[in-house]
Amino acid sequence: MSAATLPTDTLDFTHDATLRAWLASANTLETDFPIQNLPLGMFRRAGSQENFRPGVAIGDQIVDLLAACDAGALPLAVAVSLAGCAHGELNAFMAQGRAARVALRHALSHSLREGSDHQAALQPALVAQAEAEYAVPCRIGDYTDFYTGIHHATTVGKLFRPDNPLLPNYKWVPIGYHGRASSIGVSGQQFVRPRGQTKGPNDDVPVLHPTQRLDYELELGVFVGQGNALGDPIPMAQAEDHAFGLVLLNDWSARDFQAWEYQPLGPFLAKNFASTISPWIVTMEALAPFRAPFMREAGDPSPLPYLDSDSNRQQGGLDIGLEVLIQTQAMRAAGLPPERLSQSSYRDAYWTVAQMITHHTVNGCNLQAGDLLGSGTQSGKKPEQAGSLLELSAGGKIPLTLANGETRTFVQDGDSIILRAHCQRSGFRSIGFGDCQGQVLEAKA
Amino acid sequence: MSAATLPTDTLDFTHDATLRAWLASANTLETDFPIQNLPLGMFRRAGSQENFRPGVAIGDQIVDLLAACDAGALPLAVAVSLAGCAHGELNAFMAQGRAARVALRHALSHSLREGSDHQAALQPALVAQAEAEYAVPCRIGDYTDFYTGIHHATTVGKLFRPDNPLLPNYKWVPIGYHGRASSIGVSGQQFVRPRGQTKGPNDDVPVLHPTQRLDYELELGVFVGQGNALGDPIPMAQAEDHAFGLVLLNDWSARDFQAWEYQPLGPFLAKNFASTISPWIVTMEALAPFRAPFMREAGDPSPLPYLDSDSNRQQGGLDIGLEVLIQTQAMRAAGLPPERLSQSSYRDAYWTVAQMITHHTVNGCNLQAGDLLGSGTQSGKKPEQAGSLLELSAGGKIPLTLANGETRTFVQDGDSIILRAHCQRSGFRSIGFGDCQGQVLEAKA
Repeated sequence: MSAATLPTDTLDFTHDATLRAWLASANTLETDFPIQNLPLGMFRRAGSQENFRPGVAIGDQIVDLLAACDAGALPLAVAVSLAGCAHGELNAFMAQGRAARVALRHALSHSLREGSDHQAALQPALVAQAEAEYAVPCRIGDYTDFYTGIHHATTVGKLFRPDNPLLPNYKWVPIGYHGRASSIGVSGQQFVRPRGQTKGPNDDVPVLHPTQRLDYELELGVFVGQGNALGDPIPMAQAEDHAFGLVLLNDWSARDFQAWEYQPLGPFLAKNFASTISPWIVTMEALAPFRAPFMREAGDPSPLPYLDSDSNRQQGGLDIGLEVLIQTQAMRAAGLPPERLSQSSYRDAYWTVAQMITHHTVNGCNLQAGDLLGSGTQSGKKPEQAGSLLELSAGGKIPLTLANGETRTFVQDGDSIILRAHCQRSGFRSIGFGDCQGQVLEAKA
Repeated sequence: MSAATLPTDTLDFTHDATLRAWLASANTLETDFPIQNLPLGMFRRAGSQENFRPGVAIGDQIVDLLAACDAGALPLAVAVSLAGCAHGELNAFMAQGRAARVALRHALSHSLREGSDHQAALQPALVAQAEAEYAVPCRIGDYTDFYTGIHHATTVGKLFRPDNPLLPNYKWVPIGYHGRASSIGVSGQQFVRPRGQTKGPNDDVPVLHPTQRLDYELELGVFVGQGNALGDPIPMAQAEDHAFGLVLLNDWSARDFQAWEYQPLGPFLAKNFASTISPWIVTMEALAPFRAPFMREAGDPSPLPYLDSDSNRQQGGLDIGLEVLIQTQAMRAAGLPPERLSQSSYRDAYWTVAQMITHHTVNGCNLQAGDLLGSGTQSGKKPEQAGSLLELSAGGKIPLTLANGETRTFVQDGDSIILRAHCQRSGFRSIGFGDCQGQVLEAKA
């Protein structure tokens, strides 16, 4: 049995009623966190002053990993691998690479198994997700944002260059740029509408004001596990060994700032006021059943050899269903649930996780445990599958009408944007990522 | 007596011969580190396995600050302020802002003063700079590179757009972008020539090969002291309170990678393989005598109000003389010293330290202690004052001839590039920054 394909029947015949109820919750079709997922995060009891500590989501509960180690529910080797993570940062565990991650996965699976001596020992280590709050799970040393969503790049390119939307480098270079690590927050993040310089085409001089074109971007984020030394590129064959797992990422963007500032060095204040990630890192092992061929269309060039491999062609992609929802202030006041704005899949990404890692390091650049690589906006091929309002509203020209009659071209004060992701495949248990929710507040006076 | 203007005669009448010799070294005209400077760094005995620890350069020695505290040569309050810095990172001290920095400066000055009880106590805390090695002085959470060198922006712009070299946003926006923190190294850094994708205008497809247009960029780096909370912009009046001090910064660049990759999101692999800083942070207090008016020419627009202040206009600039030197492999083999390539001054920067900090945070972006802000390449107005080979060689078209007959358009394997900086003003003791030296090695096979 590989770590990637834990059986769905591990949880039968549990005789303790509390455990049975919990494990049943992990086996319902509705949960994002069946025992095939086992995502890692940093949590504490909501409102407490405790240190954030590492946990694994199962059903509607969190296994407090350090408490589980203390209770003897996990083997000593796992306890040792987690020893550096008691103070709110998962980096020391992430740096140990795939072996430590798989050992934890197997140990949890073993403890949950029918007749395990450790099953009862897990019970005192459980905290209800409803009673928890989360932190960014690790110290993010560097954050890089890629641009792997070819449909996004094409649609946005069309707004500026109708006849030549994709730049000549796009199908050769996994385009990326460095982003801001300090302003990355975890789901639940609130931020005030940012101020910045804008200048319309007919304005004589720029002005400073709150952004009038605030947007979200539907992305996945790849957390780096084991790093590489400066000067040592990571070849394709080893690239995924350096990927720890994935989160959802909302790369909030102020389109009006971006248009005025981005030449010649790229986006800056248009992006660095806030970025929001989901709290749970879904590991590469949990995603293994959902591999997909990498995306190329007839006539596309082959990647340069350093970005190519058979295994990448055959299964470098990941079929992760993505969606964006909005809940406006008015919807919240009326008790209306969030409303879906679009759906897409990560399998449409033009460059894979392995290609991002290999390209990033081909010049010798060093990645470190806890670094975050954004996928870029994941839009589908059809206009209604776009992962940003810039695309859905055709550059702000065509407002979307919501079910309650409100309209949106860009994000308004009080709006919450929620990203969700689910992997589904016949014969395998579905897994999810949990919500990535962020909210914009009115600009300060 | 302000911290910025310590008298030059504090060191007379020392009766201990060793101390006298050391303090005399700090009073020679040749040293970068007279007692008016007192720059901070992280050092250890070369070749040892000791933790890097905080020190202050004076003359040809380093005062080991923690040892000086242990010996009672510095007051308890200073010892407390340095308590978090025993393990190679100055961040905890930097985060305490100007007050802690000035207290250390005053305490050191006091201990060095004629008749001080503490003078002799400093002696066991001295380590010769010749016997030391250095680390990057703090954990750099985020590195931002600005583009404040207007002569550089103009000259480089001319290579691409002869009729319209400066983009329309340049005189309104302190252009900046996020860079890579992980690959920043301290003076002495060696790195292998990076590989990357390039595509010439007449090539059908790109190729991967070692850069053929490796360049340096002559910059200053501003280290952030006290940070700001997400959502709380730093106004001009407080901006310099958040600047800790300055270092030299060589922003190594692969011009061929940059030309192919940089649209639409800016430089990435062209820059992130290595950046080199000088080991000593020259504090804002040490630089105080060298303030200068900010640089504007007739017809330039006034900055928007959020970037403007009387004090910035009058003394927002810093008159720091800069130079670049090269020592090739052949020069080293022949025992020839480094040869100067160009000189310029930071007073020609178009945007000041305060303006960089205020602009960076106007959208609510949070700075943290230890963040590094690059100034962008500091070229003077005359072609021979350029801070990069791209400019000095007119885009690689006109080779420079060195004194030994070698020529250079770009940096060759084995070349060392050395940046130096000095502040000089009549009536004040000159201070320097120490060397920022880096060397490129042959690409790996």
